[in-house]
Amino acid sequence: MAHSSAALTPILKDELDIVIPTIRNLDFLEMWRPFFQSYHLIIVQDGDPSKKINVPEGFDYELYNRNDINRILGPKASCISFKDSACRCFGYMVSKKKYIYTIDDDCFVAKDPSGKEINALEQHIKNLLSPSTPFFFNTLYDPYQEGADFVRGYPFSLREGAPTAISHGLWLNIPDYDAPTQLVKPRERNTRYVDAVLTIPKGTLFPMCGMNLGFNRELIGPAMYFGLMGDGQPIGRYDDMWAGWCCKVICDHLGWGVKTGLPYIWHSKASNPFVNLKKEYKGIYWQEELIPFFQSVTLPKECTSVQKCYIAISEQVKDKLGKVDPYFVKLADAMVTWIEAWDELNPAGDAAAEVSNGPAKA
Amino acid sequence: MAHSSAALTPILKDELDIVIPTIRNLDFLEMWRPFFQSYHLIIVQDGDPSKKINVPEGFDYELYNRNDINRILGPKASCISFKDSACRCFGYMVSKKKYIYTIDDDCFVAKDPSGKEINALEQHIKNLLSPSTPFFFNTLYDPYQEGADFVRGYPFSLREGAPTAISHGLWLNIPDYDAPTQLVKPRERNTRYVDAVLTIPKGTLFPMCGMNLGFNRELIGPAMYFGLMGDGQPIGRYDDMWAGWCCKVICDHLGWGVKTGLPYIWHSKASNPFVNLKKEYKGIYWQEELIPFFQSVTLPKECTSVQKCYIAISEQVKDKLGKVDPYFVKLADAMVTWIEAWDELNPAGDAAAEVSNGPAKA
Repeated sequence: MAHSSAALTPILKDELDIVIPTIRNLDFLEMWRPFFQSYHLIIVQDGDPSKKINVPEGFDYELYNRNDINRILGPKASCISFKDSACRCFGYMVSKKKYIYTIDDDCFVAKDPSGKEINALEQHIKNLLSPSTPFFFNTLYDPYQEGADFVRGYPFSLREGAPTAISHGLWLNIPDYDAPTQLVKPRERNTRYVDAVLTIPKGTLFPMCGMNLGFNRELIGPAMYFGLMGDGQPIGRYDDMWAGWCCKVICDHLGWGVKTGLPYIWHSKASNPFVNLKKEYKGIYWQEELIPFFQSVTLPKECTSVQKCYIAISEQVKDKLGKVDPYFVKLADAMVTWIEAWDELNPAGDAAAEVSNGPAKA
Repeated sequence: MAHSSAALTPILKDELDIVIPTIRNLDFLEMWRPFFQSYHLIIVQDGDPSKKINVPEGFDYELYNRNDINRILGPKASCISFKDSACRCFGYMVSKKKYIYTIDDDCFVAKDPSGKEINALEQHIKNLLSPSTPFFFNTLYDPYQEGADFVRGYPFSLREGAPTAISHGLWLNIPDYDAPTQLVKPRERNTRYVDAVLTIPKGTLFPMCGMNLGFNRELIGPAMYFGLMGDGQPIGRYDDMWAGWCCKVICDHLGWGVKTGLPYIWHSKASNPFVNLKKEYKGIYWQEELIPFFQSVTLPKECTSVQKCYIAISEQVKDKLGKVDPYFVKLADAMVTWIEAWDELNPAGDAAAEVSNGPAKA
């Protein structure tokens, strides 16, 4: 793998799309120009489709607004959220690339402790191209990084690792807090640069943030659905969480890894905690039921593709979470619609995602 | 908790013992003087008991050699390894303190990236006095550290955390590699300072190194048995691993946390890889059976104390691992002897370790 800067050798240039959901002009791309300009962008315009979004000169992009989504998906467009950045998952669906990087438009280039600008995309690609270690914990973090390895006591049979499906990056400056924590700690900033990438162990759920996220679309794409949020829905700001919980359960079942840690981006602005509280409050309550639910989801052996796993989860959502609130019945239906739409736009997708060896054993 | 240097305010001065196994003069303590001098040391002399070990002036210590161990434990001394640093666990047994810190005599004070000397003991104490988060992963690492918190999507019901039983510290310079990795990468040094403490999730095993280790003796002490290694045994260098696997399974069962990460010590010298290979080779083979074994150990509800858990594990070791090699039958018996000896020296131990609310639910 190339270690030189992306400007010289853009890694996976033809195999990765950058997906950006937005409601405003994309001036933030100026700062990312040295790192992103060689890549293709998929911009998903949220809200009013008549509004013109400016994209800085020199970027190669396609842009979809609500009218485009409705036209392309027809009645199935109902599964794509409106007036919520959850709409970004439409970009995952229309991409034809193997890898996706998605970033929010209030995220800027961060610097490492030496003052060097961090090429976030390059680090995500490194994370995705090297294996994960979900079955046993390595105390020196990612053993595939330069200068690191497996420590004494790490079983040799597990040192080949597992394919990496997701690379979850972090944020300097404004941490990704919920509304209550924002309200209680309005001035807290994340200044701790933790120089590590690690695999989240099998069987462990985590809060996946969609702000700075890379994934192998060919592996896990069909599970990267950001749910029903925003306009007309009783909940917001749980889009990425929902995707993360579904994806983690499926990765665990299929024997794939999820990494978190580097790279950092600079998150510039805290969103309004009062608005967030309104979006979140049902989620804060519901998540107390959702976590035990996802901890207890079991997928049968027959679920040998992401699509099959996802449909199986949707059935359990309807069956078990439907009792918590009728919203989850609607969400379960939207999950099915999402898979139908995915397979329509990605006719070879199911075959590509089929795992030849069947699911990994526990 | 005090944040000033240990020299000014030694935290838990009367509640913590430092346990050091050694075969040589303890000149290495000079470097640790500002950090250790206020604490009581328990030195376990390995090998020839007629040899005189010098301890630098001004340290408060008790020293046990093999004759002392035999005198104190009588026939039960058979459970304490000879000619192996595994003998250190005798120090855990004779301590009367709530917390233990154990360190190898080839470990020196490391520096953080700013050049400041790291007070390893103080960081272990911080780790042990703050809760763990074994039931859900926090992407910003230890949420109880200054400047950190739980991120969006972390269930509020889990934010009180769990009691921390173990604090596993890391090593700069010479990493803790097995003999094959030492042989293949003789020049590799760990230079990566990762500024993080994290909880190893419930259900995940890890390779616990005894070089730089703190624990709550009152909680997990009776499980911190370093097994039968060294003289007369077919295996070495798996003492801390064995303890770590047993402890982790018991912590998971009783709802306690295990942390890893900070603090670093400076590990000065790589041990001889050829000697290590001789000690390890059976372990490298056996561990392929040991990991699945520990992953499948289940403890019944009736196991409400560490002692009961440990005896239950010893029975499963005899039953299942006895088939792998007769050594494990001997080890299983030694595990029982260890618990008998522990309870003899710590008559209130069983009651203290009894968990009032019973084991944690899954």
